[in-house]
Amino acid sequence: MSVPITPALKDELDIVIPTIRNLDFLEMWRPFFQPYHLIIVQDGDPTKTIKVPEGFDYELYNRNDINRILGPKASCISFKDSACRCFGYMVSKKKYIYTIDDDCFVAKDPTGKEINALEQHIKNLLCPSTPNFFNALYDPYREGADFVRGYPFSMREGVKTAVSHGLWMNIPDYDAPTQMVKPLERNTRYVDAVMTIPKGTLFPMCGMNLAFDRELIGPAMYFGLMGDGQPIGRYDDMWAGWCIKVICDHLGLGVKTGLPYIWHSKASNPFVNLKKEYKGIFWQEEIIPFFQSVSLPKDCTSVQKCYLVLAEKVKEKLGPIDPYFTKLADAMVTWIEAWDQINSTGTGAKVANGTANGTANGK
Amino acid sequence: MSVPITPALKDELDIVIPTIRNLDFLEMWRPFFQPYHLIIVQDGDPTKTIKVPEGFDYELYNRNDINRILGPKASCISFKDSACRCFGYMVSKKKYIYTIDDDCFVAKDPTGKEINALEQHIKNLLCPSTPNFFNALYDPYREGADFVRGYPFSMREGVKTAVSHGLWMNIPDYDAPTQMVKPLERNTRYVDAVMTIPKGTLFPMCGMNLAFDRELIGPAMYFGLMGDGQPIGRYDDMWAGWCIKVICDHLGLGVKTGLPYIWHSKASNPFVNLKKEYKGIFWQEEIIPFFQSVSLPKDCTSVQKCYLVLAEKVKEKLGPIDPYFTKLADAMVTWIEAWDQINSTGTGAKVANGTANGTANGK
Repeated sequence: MSVPITPALKDELDIVIPTIRNLDFLEMWRPFFQPYHLIIVQDGDPTKTIKVPEGFDYELYNRNDINRILGPKASCISFKDSACRCFGYMVSKKKYIYTIDDDCFVAKDPTGKEINALEQHIKNLLCPSTPNFFNALYDPYREGADFVRGYPFSMREGVKTAVSHGLWMNIPDYDAPTQMVKPLERNTRYVDAVMTIPKGTLFPMCGMNLAFDRELIGPAMYFGLMGDGQPIGRYDDMWAGWCIKVICDHLGLGVKTGLPYIWHSKASNPFVNLKKEYKGIFWQEEIIPFFQSVSLPKDCTSVQKCYLVLAEKVKEKLGPIDPYFTKLADAMVTWIEAWDQINSTGTGAKVANGTANGTANGK
Repeated sequence: MSVPITPALKDELDIVIPTIRNLDFLEMWRPFFQPYHLIIVQDGDPTKTIKVPEGFDYELYNRNDINRILGPKASCISFKDSACRCFGYMVSKKKYIYTIDDDCFVAKDPTGKEINALEQHIKNLLCPSTPNFFNALYDPYREGADFVRGYPFSMREGVKTAVSHGLWMNIPDYDAPTQMVKPLERNTRYVDAVMTIPKGTLFPMCGMNLAFDRELIGPAMYFGLMGDGQPIGRYDDMWAGWCIKVICDHLGLGVKTGLPYIWHSKASNPFVNLKKEYKGIFWQEEIIPFFQSVSLPKDCTSVQKCYLVLAEKVKEKLGPIDPYFTKLADAMVTWIEAWDQINSTGTGAKVANGTANGTANGK
């Protein structure tokens, strides 16, 4: 007789999925996701019905729900772009979030075993990070590894991990120009490592396969203004990645990348992508130096405070590039106001707001 | 009929091996090393004869040679410690150096194929590094990989690579306390990645399996004062690693770590190691913050200038910890003087010095 094992963090983690289609992809994830609660953020036409496979426990929000719950503050949530997923982060009542795209399937490790991506993310989040010194054998807390000679003992406790960034087999996460130049490139290399991204180093954070600790970094996980009515798309996760990294560095929190892999099934259209990205391709040349040099004052001891100061600096330093950044900076402030409204007024008020539409529960 | 392939950089790379014993370990490396020139630095008793397997092209220096060639400046070269290897870097006339310990054998990749470590190091050195922004799919120049979405296009040229730091299967490079706590730990995880260590991040550089571009960073590759007559050992490569990383960051050069692996055959005695290391274990708690915060003035545009300024700062900031650091700072200056003497006075003078004893050529 086998004893049933309760999956890790079963009642402490929500899976957030932005989508415009029926969620058939969940069938493949059933063994790994079914114990968890899903938050589905329906993008595009709110009159469309999204089918969720039987047996999953979920709440679903469409644009009408978002507008109703946030009122005028709904302006900070993108429409017709997967950036809308961050609404799910806001209304979650759990400590941890895992977010995944609906074109991502279960990958296999080199032995042919199906990878439980969520389990690996949870491992990553529950063990410390080492942002202050590089460890040559990668994650020092992993079985069979440790800190190597010359690693300062005072740093071996590590710091709390706020973010776990997973990777992709098959279709790599390339920009439109690279997609166009290498239409046939597929990622077949399984790199068996998890590492902390060092303090002071920025990275391109992809939202396809991402987990984080909502209590530690949630209010900074804003995916910006993208898609409908905006001059840019496909920079939602990048924007969030730059912001969270600067704030994690400031607050002494860790960001990991590497395992787990998911199987990214289909390449998006590079011509459509180029149209969405092309302003970003220019702008990132100024945005990244901005984030590389920005520093937050010592009295910013909460994520919210950090984020509001960052919004001010975005307006001041990036506003001159394009009026879009002024609008984005304002949206960053609105996001924090909305976050605090949804999250701070006791769980009673929050539940009443956050799950009003979420009773279309498949279980 | 097969066309013989000339190994990469055959006439531009020296292999430097510090040793106290016969070099039987070269038999296993013969297919990979035989085309290259070896510089053997014999440590300990100079009257002992070191046997080198037939067919290798080498020059060998013992302590008497070092004293004769450097005169009073020989004081900067350690004795009874593998730190003496840096003498080999100094007298080389080649652009590239690979250094390996004599207890390191050929490792196998997961398919069972023997790894040509030198070939991988050469690949690492000849392709650029990306220290200014992290790439999620590791080395973007590798076949099957590229820069991911969100990577600034202006940074995709990368920078010149100065150092390639390889890793170890089997016996991991642990300090004495970790060796004692985990006597049975073996590294069995093959991580199929090469990555650039980001700008501003220090790492524990191990001298067991290390390659570098002598023209770009050679004068900073000083392995310090260790062993006989010194209060510390086993920090030679660490010291060099901290120095080269600060200088590479300042000069805009890259440092890579990851592939290739070698097979590290035997664990050194942890009790002996603890005796050598224990002061370093305390000192590194102050040394590392020093190197993390040190900055070099803009007019330091050569490695030598950087290194001499670093020596001054070592004396000033670390001297108060222990008189050893004042002695070390002086040795750093002596090292640069010796380097320039051996390397700057035209190749004629250099050859006359550097290879006077090196005619015991096995070929």
